[in-house]
Amino acid sequence: MLRTHTCGELRIVDVEKEVTLSGWVQKVRNKGGMVWVDLRDRYGITQLIFEEGSTAPEIVESAKNLGREYVIKATGIVAERFAKNNKIPTGDIEIKPNKIEILNSSKTPPFTIEDETDGGEDLRMKYRYLDLRRTVIREKLQLRHVMMQQIRSFLSGQDFIEVETPVLIKSTPEGARDFVVPSRMNSGEFYALPQSPQTFKQLLMVSGFDRYFQIVKCFRDEDLRADRQPEFTQIDCEMSFVDAEDIYNNFEGLVKHLFKNVKGIELNEVPRMSYADAMKLYGSDKPDTRFEMKFTELNDVAQNKGFNVFDSAELVVGINAKGCAEYTRKQLDALTDFVRRPQIGAKGLVYVKYLSAEQAGNIDGAFKSSVDKFYTQDDLKAWADKMGAEPGDLLLVLSGDTRHTQNALNELRLHMGSALGLRDKNTFAPLWVVDFPLLEWDEETKRFHAMHHPFTSPKAEDMDKLDANPGEVRANAYDMVINGVEVGGGSIRIHDRGTQKLMFKHLGFTDEEAQAQFGFLMDAFEYGAPPHGGIAFGFDRLCALFGGSDSIRDYIAFPKNNSGRDIMIDSPSPISEEQLKELAIKLD
Amino acid sequence: MLRTHTCGELRIVDVEKEVTLSGWVQKVRNKGGMVWVDLRDRYGITQLIFEEGSTAPEIVESAKNLGREYVIKATGIVAERFAKNNKIPTGDIEIKPNKIEILNSSKTPPFTIEDETDGGEDLRMKYRYLDLRRTVIREKLQLRHVMMQQIRSFLSGQDFIEVETPVLIKSTPEGARDFVVPSRMNSGEFYALPQSPQTFKQLLMVSGFDRYFQIVKCFRDEDLRADRQPEFTQIDCEMSFVDAEDIYNNFEGLVKHLFKNVKGIELNEVPRMSYADAMKLYGSDKPDTRFEMKFTELNDVAQNKGFNVFDSAELVVGINAKGCAEYTRKQLDALTDFVRRPQIGAKGLVYVKYLSAEQAGNIDGAFKSSVDKFYTQDDLKAWADKMGAEPGDLLLVLSGDTRHTQNALNELRLHMGSALGLRDKNTFAPLWVVDFPLLEWDEETKRFHAMHHPFTSPKAEDMDKLDANPGEVRANAYDMVINGVEVGGGSIRIHDRGTQKLMFKHLGFTDEEAQAQFGFLMDAFEYGAPPHGGIAFGFDRLCALFGGSDSIRDYIAFPKNNSGRDIMIDSPSPISEEQLKELAIKLD
Repeated sequence: MLRTHTCGELRIVDVEKEVTLSGWVQKVRNKGGMVWVDLRDRYGITQLIFEEGSTAPEIVESAKNLGREYVIKATGIVAERFAKNNKIPTGDIEIKPNKIEILNSSKTPPFTIEDETDGGEDLRMKYRYLDLRRTVIREKLQLRHVMMQQIRSFLSGQDFIEVETPVLIKSTPEGARDFVVPSRMNSGEFYALPQSPQTFKQLLMVSGFDRYFQIVKCFRDEDLRADRQPEFTQIDCEMSFVDAEDIYNNFEGLVKHLFKNVKGIELNEVPRMSYADAMKLYGSDKPDTRFEMKFTELNDVAQNKGFNVFDSAELVVGINAKGCAEYTRKQLDALTDFVRRPQIGAKGLVYVKYLSAEQAGNIDGAFKSSVDKFYTQDDLKAWADKMGAEPGDLLLVLSGDTRHTQNALNELRLHMGSALGLRDKNTFAPLWVVDFPLLEWDEETKRFHAMHHPFTSPKAEDMDKLDANPGEVRANAYDMVINGVEVGGGSIRIHDRGTQKLMFKHLGFTDEEAQAQFGFLMDAFEYGAPPHGGIAFGFDRLCALFGGSDSIRDYIAFPKNNSGRDIMIDSPSPISEEQLKELAIKLD
Repeated sequence: MLRTHTCGELRIVDVEKEVTLSGWVQKVRNKGGMVWVDLRDRYGITQLIFEEGSTAPEIVESAKNLGREYVIKATGIVAERFAKNNKIPTGDIEIKPNKIEILNSSKTPPFTIEDETDGGEDLRMKYRYLDLRRTVIREKLQLRHVMMQQIRSFLSGQDFIEVETPVLIKSTPEGARDFVVPSRMNSGEFYALPQSPQTFKQLLMVSGFDRYFQIVKCFRDEDLRADRQPEFTQIDCEMSFVDAEDIYNNFEGLVKHLFKNVKGIELNEVPRMSYADAMKLYGSDKPDTRFEMKFTELNDVAQNKGFNVFDSAELVVGINAKGCAEYTRKQLDALTDFVRRPQIGAKGLVYVKYLSAEQAGNIDGAFKSSVDKFYTQDDLKAWADKMGAEPGDLLLVLSGDTRHTQNALNELRLHMGSALGLRDKNTFAPLWVVDFPLLEWDEETKRFHAMHHPFTSPKAEDMDKLDANPGEVRANAYDMVINGVEVGGGSIRIHDRGTQKLMFKHLGFTDEEAQAQFGFLMDAFEYGAPPHGGIAFGFDRLCALFGGSDSIRDYIAFPKNNSGRDIMIDSPSPISEEQLKELAIKLD
């Protein structure tokens, strides 16, 4: 028996009990005749007290020699503390050990095991097992555990069945790059790791499983941008005999359940917004709706006044930064620099200050802008009116082709939202973005790609545009967005062979290619496939959102770095000649 | 809205409601003026009735034309049935449709979608999505889901945290063959898929996670024997500050919880048996303790009587088949053939019939054996006494070297147990087999291997034998066995660098090899690793056991065949030249 209690468990009612605790030495305070040791485990901290005179001398001596992160077992009597510590639940008591055993010693850790550590990212990754010892990190993984439990309990309660789909599947050319696994028993052939269990969950619907879910690892061999991982976890769900409305209701239910049971927050009904509106009003298909600052198109009031930049632009569009008219030259220059960064790529930024009487002072007129020589005060008043601006506000306007201008103004809007403190981590604004386009044009390959994936159904009313205007066809596809983060996405699927074949044709597959890659699915559709649809949530991202973090990395027990390496175990690594030979492959 | 109710939901209280059901056509019975359709979904079957005169003629007509496995949506009024069917929960009612819509047609399935199907194994695997439509198969996966939920709920309730460990890890030479994944970003290097999360769960203990579990996919690239899968699922668990006793108590708790909540069976305390006793009494480290028929060693009474076969044997050992003295010559020959099969490999079988007075009739003496010319009636009486035999019993005796003889008699015992109806699928006899040997000699490589794995701790009291008699050192290792099936196994781990290094040395690793492969773990042991231990259960096997099946295959949604192929999706398969080039590998 290594312990009778944990280090977070003992209270005043336990006084005079003999107990045995095991844990890590968090701190030793040696005041000569008295030694205190803070003993830590996952459950808390308990103080041990060693007193010359009352504790046996050899025990006092060994207590003095304990080092940080030593693992010890201490047996002793629970006593009431003289000076209570109301900051910890065990703060009313301490243990007077009559026996102490060092279970393992510890070298000095390369960084401090405290909430605020002195360890840099690389060091913490190399010694991830020590980083995980920090309470702030362990709590993130505990949150993840609680979320998993809550998700499973909610979905099971709704008759969803968790089914494990295979990890060793088949490589397909569609979508991102696959990780592949050479087969030894089938020489020259490869398995692939799933980017998602998409086709399998659809087959489960064909099988009549009706409601499926799985919390499942997925894999993408992509060049890793910051905060992407080659392996990530999805909450993968599919339902039969549903339309989009059923999906919204069911998974709004899941999200509400999580907010209520994990964070104690009661959410209202989740609003819906079309993709078209999201782009028009926020310049993004994942708008952060914690704050307004919607886009206003200004083409009609800003063009044809002699300002060539605007006149030649496809779109002139602005946001109203409430109360920012007093921004200084320096602040405005910084905003211009912000939108001109290569990642954002705007050519410049037009501002209009709508000055209050006080701000205006002896300046002539209420509007002061970077384009004063092209626009009269009345012109600018028209912009301000259109944007619902009041004295004291700052209008920020971008122009150019629609797509780039929307993107850039979206970035500027988020930047201003953060600057104005409108993006509180404890406020949650979920949103359904619906009616995504079915296809998107890819300049590089000069063909249409599926915006969601090739199994997404087109809207019946748009089917007639599929040949003439494929880019205008809308899909039965939807995303759930919370605070500007796409946490989930899905669609109502195609469930008949004919439509699926047509879809592959539009994506540039020959009939033979489609049959070779997805024949099993199209065959399945001929044996009574029910209408079905689903959604997948990015679980790592959802955990980070719930935990109030921007990065997913601390919500993954053993993450990889941006080169896809696990620097703790030093993986990937070379394998033996014998292994290569058995797999019938050679290094190139 | 595709349905208002499921096909398993409506009852007599719903009569006169208008409802919409969607599902599959199980059966159409056309009696001219009347057509009945059985509509099926996951939840049940509901009868639709179409009656000339009261149903619109075009609806009757379309009902007549429905084929098996068509997917339809039917709206109509719930009515009380004239002839009730008490075999199904919806048997009191039927639906009189006023609208029917074919959602999808179906080709005739290649085999019948019934509990007893006419489809062979290969056909069912190719059309697994149709095989899964059969209620008997779906129920197996539903059982699996329920077991997963129960396991998670029990362990979470015991403060275990589920942590996802990585799937892309590092190849190690120890144990079975790894599946590997070439890294594109780290050219010439490979990830490996985990055979188990062993080292990661130990690192979590070093991190202070204290109680970890995970229901997790593991991978082994082994030549597949019947009923092995390249990917399989483990319930993986680890605890800190525990000894073996704590493990027994905790996981006995889990198994009892499962039996109670999934099967309604209250288990008694799980008995324990040492590995040595298991081998001696059952000739197996996973004895089926649903029935007795224990081994009796007969060396002292059977040797030195002139029967050379026995005299030269290391072991003479028998079982008592109660009440089988009346076995015929033919039956006995069949048993001899059974033990002589190459898989079992005994040279012969000695039997002794202990005849009852009636059976003996006018034969001289109560014992009749295949070795009558070497043994007197008194000799055989001594065997019978030793084996606790009574008149009417049959003694079956094998001899030879200890290992092979124990193995062979174990097979014979199980065979007799089945023949005598002693292995009821609804009786469950769990058992802890404890104190496994630490090492086992491998004839092929001429060195010791870890019997469990290299992280298993030796028993402290046996440490002094490690150099002189490594084969005699016992480990803190244990298996849980139920009905002769090893459902789980684990150990108390080594938690200090010195012992771990020593262990690697005994397993034939150089210091450099040990450091290169497992340096991260031995390093971790220097930073305050707590004593820890754990267990892993084979989840597929546990589900099959609970479901009363011998095969795990039907408890896996999409299993692979014995060549490691998924014949439904046709995987593994060749990949493109471009993929190979990106991964910097060539086919050899």
